[in-house]
Amino acid sequence: MTASTDALTAAEFATVHAEVQQFYAEHMQLLDSGAASEWAATFTEDGSFAPPSAPEPIVGRKALEAGVRTAQAELAESGEVVRHLFGMIAVRPLPDGALKVRSYVQVIKTRRDGEPRPALMCVCTDLLVREEGALLVKERQVTRDDRP
Amino acid sequence: MTASTDALTAAEFATVHAEVQQFYAEHMQLLDSGAASEWAATFTEDGSFAPPSAPEPIVGRKALEAGVRTAQAELAESGEVVRHLFGMIAVRPLPDGALKVRSYVQVIKTRRDGEPRPALMCVCTDLLVREEGALLVKERQVTRDDRP
Amino acid sequence: MTASTDALTAAEFATVHAEVQQFYAEHMQLLDSGAASEWAATFTEDGSFAPPSAPEPIVGRKALEAGVRTAQAELAESGEVVRHLFGMIAVRPLPDGALKVRSYVQVIKTRRDGEPRPALMCVCTDLLVREEGALLVKERQVTRDDRP
Repeated sequence: MTASTDALTAAEFATVHAEVQQFYAEHMQLLDSGAASEWAATFTEDGSFAPPSAPEPIVGRKALEAGVRTAQAELAESGEVVRHLFGMIAVRPLPDGALKVRSYVQVIKTRRDGEPRPALMCVCTDLLVREEGALLVKERQVTRDDRP
Repeated sequence: MTASTDALTAAEFATVHAEVQQFYAEHMQLLDSGAASEWAATFTEDGSFAPPSAPEPIVGRKALEAGVRTAQAELAESGEVVRHLFGMIAVRPLPDGALKVRSYVQVIKTRRDGEPRPALMCVCTDLLVREEGALLVKERQVTRDDRP
Repeated sequence: MTASTDALTAAEFATVHAEVQQFYAEHMQLLDSGAASEWAATFTEDGSFAPPSAPEPIVGRKALEAGVRTAQAELAESGEVVRHLFGMIAVRPLPDGALKVRSYVQVIKTRRDGEPRPALMCVCTDLLVREEGALLVKERQVTRDDRP
């Protein structure tokens, strides 16, 4: 894995690395705040998301947006606030400029007047591509540690 | 939010992004180690901190330092070690060179011989400014997920 | 601590900072996936690791690799998946080009069909050195918050 940055200079890699970190920070803050369409817009038009709970990948911004709205409705009903925290973000630049990124994801839920509860520990593998300069998720695969 | 880095080149943003990450790492390690005056010195002289539990913002380094000493005394009494972990740090450079930064904060407490306990999940919104080259907190607002 | 980056320009520090973050992401993903020899290879040949639970430091790649294999066997027996998440990574470049890095470490374990469990909160202090361009751990000291 240490060969992952070989295609770029160290300075170029640092620039890409910061972009990726900023991308995930904004991406997850959009998701957790329920900004469904803005979140879906951080995928490519044909972006796919294979979550651990779905039998088939969710494909396309409309379907991704609908998935967020459903999840938000469930959260509102449960009275919980959810946070997705990415960590240990390992970035591997590909020859064509795309990025393979493997990260750990903590999903933490908090009920009113309750203590935060680690709800899920996941691993997220993304293919990020660039469109008009901006990073977008083209393919996402997520696995859950409780379903190995 | 993807327009947040537009004012800077990608390389300039990467430089600022690393400074911000380093700033929070040092800032929170100072707080958790009880270095009250050193921590207060990472705010501007008139820095303000609106914590979720206080009716009024805490203003100025002296008051911020006193707040840390009080919290440390309570921790010592409870026999717990506290850690503040920032995550999903979203950095938005402003036209005047200041930075608006919105982050998630996990507060984790550990008792002697006990397991770590997620005590709080918060969102921290900071206005960071630069004085003599160093980043400082000018305004901080924190909300708690358990008090939405 | 704010003087930590003084030896480098801000852009040089950003480059080093991204390398360090990428190093830990790959390093911990190797550990958690049980890639014992690959993980040991991210230490120097004479690298040492003083864990909180061992009376003596573990020294050298062979011993480090054996330690991972033992831990993996115990995990397999317990049926748990483990994740090590570094946070608040504070990087201090030393005059000779080595790096002193102090970080918080969350150790999270998840049992099949169970919720993630914060197992340990630690502080890791590393001396990172460069060999043929790549960062390696030369010395590691870890303390546990539950054994202050």
